[in-house]
Amino acid sequence: MASAHPASGEDSLIARYFKPIATDPGAFALTDDAAILNADGEDIVVTTDAVVEGVHFLSNDPPETLARKVLRVNLSDLAAKGATPAGFVLTLALRAVDDGWLSAFARGLGEDAKHYACPLLGGDTVSTPGPLTVSITAFGRVPRGKMVRRSGARPGDRVMVTGTIGDAALGLAVLKGGAAAAGLANDAAARDRLVGRYRIPEPRNVLAAAIRDHASAAMDVSDGLAGDLTKLCAASGVSAVIDAPQIPTSTEAAELLARGVVGIEALIAGGDDYEVLCTVPDAACARFAEDARRAGVALTSIGTVVAGTAPVRFLDAQGRDIVLARLSYSHF
Amino acid sequence: MASAHPASGEDSLIARYFKPIATDPGAFALTDDAAILNADGEDIVVTTDAVVEGVHFLSNDPPETLARKVLRVNLSDLAAKGATPAGFVLTLALRAVDDGWLSAFARGLGEDAKHYACPLLGGDTVSTPGPLTVSITAFGRVPRGKMVRRSGARPGDRVMVTGTIGDAALGLAVLKGGAAAAGLANDAAARDRLVGRYRIPEPRNVLAAAIRDHASAAMDVSDGLAGDLTKLCAASGVSAVIDAPQIPTSTEAAELLARGVVGIEALIAGGDDYEVLCTVPDAACARFAEDARRAGVALTSIGTVVAGTAPVRFLDAQGRDIVLARLSYSHF
Repeated sequence: MASAHPASGEDSLIARYFKPIATDPGAFALTDDAAILNADGEDIVVTTDAVVEGVHFLSNDPPETLARKVLRVNLSDLAAKGATPAGFVLTLALRAVDDGWLSAFARGLGEDAKHYACPLLGGDTVSTPGPLTVSITAFGRVPRGKMVRRSGARPGDRVMVTGTIGDAALGLAVLKGGAAAAGLANDAAARDRLVGRYRIPEPRNVLAAAIRDHASAAMDVSDGLAGDLTKLCAASGVSAVIDAPQIPTSTEAAELLARGVVGIEALIAGGDDYEVLCTVPDAACARFAEDARRAGVALTSIGTVVAGTAPVRFLDAQGRDIVLARLSYSHF
Repeated sequence: MASAHPASGEDSLIARYFKPIATDPGAFALTDDAAILNADGEDIVVTTDAVVEGVHFLSNDPPETLARKVLRVNLSDLAAKGATPAGFVLTLALRAVDDGWLSAFARGLGEDAKHYACPLLGGDTVSTPGPLTVSITAFGRVPRGKMVRRSGARPGDRVMVTGTIGDAALGLAVLKGGAAAAGLANDAAARDRLVGRYRIPEPRNVLAAAIRDHASAAMDVSDGLAGDLTKLCAASGVSAVIDAPQIPTSTEAAELLARGVVGIEALIAGGDDYEVLCTVPDAACARFAEDARRAGVALTSIGTVVAGTAPVRFLDAQGRDIVLARLSYSHF
């Protein structure tokens, strides 16, 4: 980001909205062309996620929650990789400078940057005639060689997930007026809770060290549990069998499922969960569960890693295979 | 970037076009959620630049040169900061998957990544209904505390620039059918040279170590020499006096200037040069010039840093102030 220059709207925008939240010394108060990340013998973990208006978020999503979500989506990747947040850079493609929008966006971003100790280091602000697009590249630190990969799952490991699965997809369905909206027509509080889960995910950074200590493989659930588990298994050269009734759901999701308003596929192929999916050797499960309990993060065992490269199986309460028409969200 | 999964177009796109160029071990062949940057006691320099179709590049710019330009724009920042390239992450917002376009884009990107030893480490590919948008965050390494800042210029330092200034802005004017196009109507080779300078900048990474050794402040010229020098002076709390006739120009630019087809402002407030602008203490000038000569990079002294915070002055051959209506390109 560039320094303040009176003739440049871009620079004054940066000085006004983003300089106050760029508190890390390595950001040089956004007055230089680059930022510094101090590494000190650790590995720097790098992850990138971009969101596009109308594709990943709705035009009327509040700017505060949008800012927090884009940062949290990246924080979720760092958590799953066992990394401690170190900072991020922001690319913002805007149609116009809207002071109300920008100040709310910067406020949400700054609050989360502070809360997660992940400071803004720099970025680029450009104009676009198209949809608002926000891209964040976030950095974390892990002890040398200790990033948790997707590829370490071994037959016999337990498959575990944090939190509950499917709420964000239902929240989006509520906003879009889908079946979930109709199913909860008389329960505004339930609708709000699901929408909240869609708009503001809860990245599991408090669990990062425990994931590093205990998980054989991990990733965050962003495109749907079914598809993401399939990816993790492919990277590890294994398969898995999931006991679908064990998949943790919120009260709202469980009710919609029980009433037949939505099927299991809406929950496990919907995406936007930003929970951690990981595999844990049997011997480490008890300690991992204890660490999660101390961190205040719900952790559920949902199945087992098995040998082979067959498609991941999801079994219902009667042990029958659930056939999924799709596994996850794909952009193309 | 995600691993290959047969059901996902995004993943197969990544596997097909970008996995072959992600050769660094820290990229994990783009099969994980994050990449690793190994730091080893050095500082990691981070820089971000995004480009939007119709704003920063033209819809008919060839995908090879577009890819190379976006990477080079970031490499240019690393060079000016005295950093050695370490790798980059790529965010691509695409309207559709066009195999011809993507393979050309990946080819150009891969060639430059190899040439500049700056490997692809990861990224995100998303769909957009809007203009094609490419964002790169690049990483470099400098010895601890040795990043060259904008803020180190001191009165008495020489102001120096690499290469020639204004060619890219003229190249863009040629493509847009402006005065430069008419002025060179009979000289296709000259038009091609200017367009080439616009489409494929020449980042000065070969000079990074010398900039680190000798420059008191540095940045790359991306938004126009006049505006960028103003920013450097503001960050350093100084001003500068520039001898405009000393500003290095190509044969083509000099001719257009001499014939009155374009004015000096078109050259020094046009942007897209991606040359290095730096300030060098008198005592270091001879050694810096010798390093530049050895590296094969033209280096020109164009003026002097002076005390105070008055606007930067550009003087003509008669020592009169040149009045500039604008200093640089601004997005807003």
